[in-house]
Amino acid sequence: MSGKLYGIGLGPGDPELMTLKAARLIAGADVIAYPSLEGGGSFARSIAAQQISENSEEISITIPMTVKRGPAQAAYDEGAALIATRLDAGKTVVVLCEGDPFFYGSFMYLFSRLSERFETEVVPGVTSVSACAAALQQPLTARNEILTIIPGPMNEPEMEARIEGAEAVAIVKVGRHLPKIRRVLGRLGLEASAGYVERASLPNQRALPLAEAPETAPYFSMILITRGQDPWL
Amino acid sequence: MSGKLYGIGLGPGDPELMTLKAARLIAGADVIAYPSLEGGGSFARSIAAQQISENSEEISITIPMTVKRGPAQAAYDEGAALIATRLDAGKTVVVLCEGDPFFYGSFMYLFSRLSERFETEVVPGVTSVSACAAALQQPLTARNEILTIIPGPMNEPEMEARIEGAEAVAIVKVGRHLPKIRRVLGRLGLEASAGYVERASLPNQRALPLAEAPETAPYFSMILITRGQDPWL
Repeated sequence: MSGKLYGIGLGPGDPELMTLKAARLIAGADVIAYPSLEGGGSFARSIAAQQISENSEEISITIPMTVKRGPAQAAYDEGAALIATRLDAGKTVVVLCEGDPFFYGSFMYLFSRLSERFETEVVPGVTSVSACAAALQQPLTARNEILTIIPGPMNEPEMEARIEGAEAVAIVKVGRHLPKIRRVLGRLGLEASAGYVERASLPNQRALPLAEAPETAPYFSMILITRGQDPWL
Repeated sequence: MSGKLYGIGLGPGDPELMTLKAARLIAGADVIAYPSLEGGGSFARSIAAQQISENSEEISITIPMTVKRGPAQAAYDEGAALIATRLDAGKTVVVLCEGDPFFYGSFMYLFSRLSERFETEVVPGVTSVSACAAALQQPLTARNEILTIIPGPMNEPEMEARIEGAEAVAIVKVGRHLPKIRRVLGRLGLEASAGYVERASLPNQRALPLAEAPETAPYFSMILITRGQDPWL
């Protein structure tokens, strides 16, 4: 009988923001798999470190940092094949995912390769969007407001059109796109209502009005815009 | 010295989807406060029940079910005043919130009344959107996709315009709005790519293609539409 595959959301970075279910499943897993960056460590593994048992086998899937998709896809092919051998042997495999597995998560690349062959369960996690709102002490959505989540790499005209027509907005994956985002928000007159957060929930978290944000942003950074059209008092 | 106020996200309903931080803070709180429905219990309290200490004082804030805002606002005024007396006495007060406190959460009504006077921390939680995607085994967003979260009570023409221009969509607070949503998705030709979830992560969870969903939906139900414009294989 085949083993079960879990894709487990670890939350935004603070190990205490993992769920009780994630902690239990990590501690009991036969095999723990996670993505690692070429030449770097694994952020996912660092979040889960305290829960990982010495008795678990670890599979690190090294993802090459290239613009082309091919090399990363080949790495996921190899990782999925390795995980499949463990599932075929009846082992429980837990894949660690930053944030929530189905919200811009790398687990999707393994899910698409393995979930038809093996029993698979996704354990949802706290997203960085919720963590950034908490850090800024800025509610995301009340009552019947709409929330739009926009990735920073989007081209400038489309980003402008999307934000112009939106209510509350979270711009994720800010990183090197910060100057473009500032231009867009400046033209829309929204810079004053925007908050900036980097490394939400980690010890070196920064949460600031966008006007006070640094010139350059790390990959793990986000901008929140809430317009308060719908006061909740 | 005043006590500290926490707004704590409990996740979508399964008590194991609460974070380690939420569990620790609930267990150690002097005072636990939560909203209750008039004539009903408190869903938030039921999620946290196993963590609540016998030594904690409990404050139940009964929210009247009326269309007018006034009575509910008066209930939050009273609840906030009661919580303030405990904070003034130096006690730690934990407010329990289903899901994430700043994502359509009732904690906002207390936050707006208390956070300027008292030290306040929001502990983010797993949203029902993440739980619904996990239940449907349907990724929300990959790569550079946009996610739009739309409340079910929105009027029909605006809902149609919002969904037509969107990529991935989560419609929350479906409940009695299900027939309207079906009409909108039918006109947009999107019914076949929509999934329906009720009571995500609870023992009586149902996750189905929208075409197989029941005629009537409970308040805690959601519809997810993902269009797969951006294949991740």
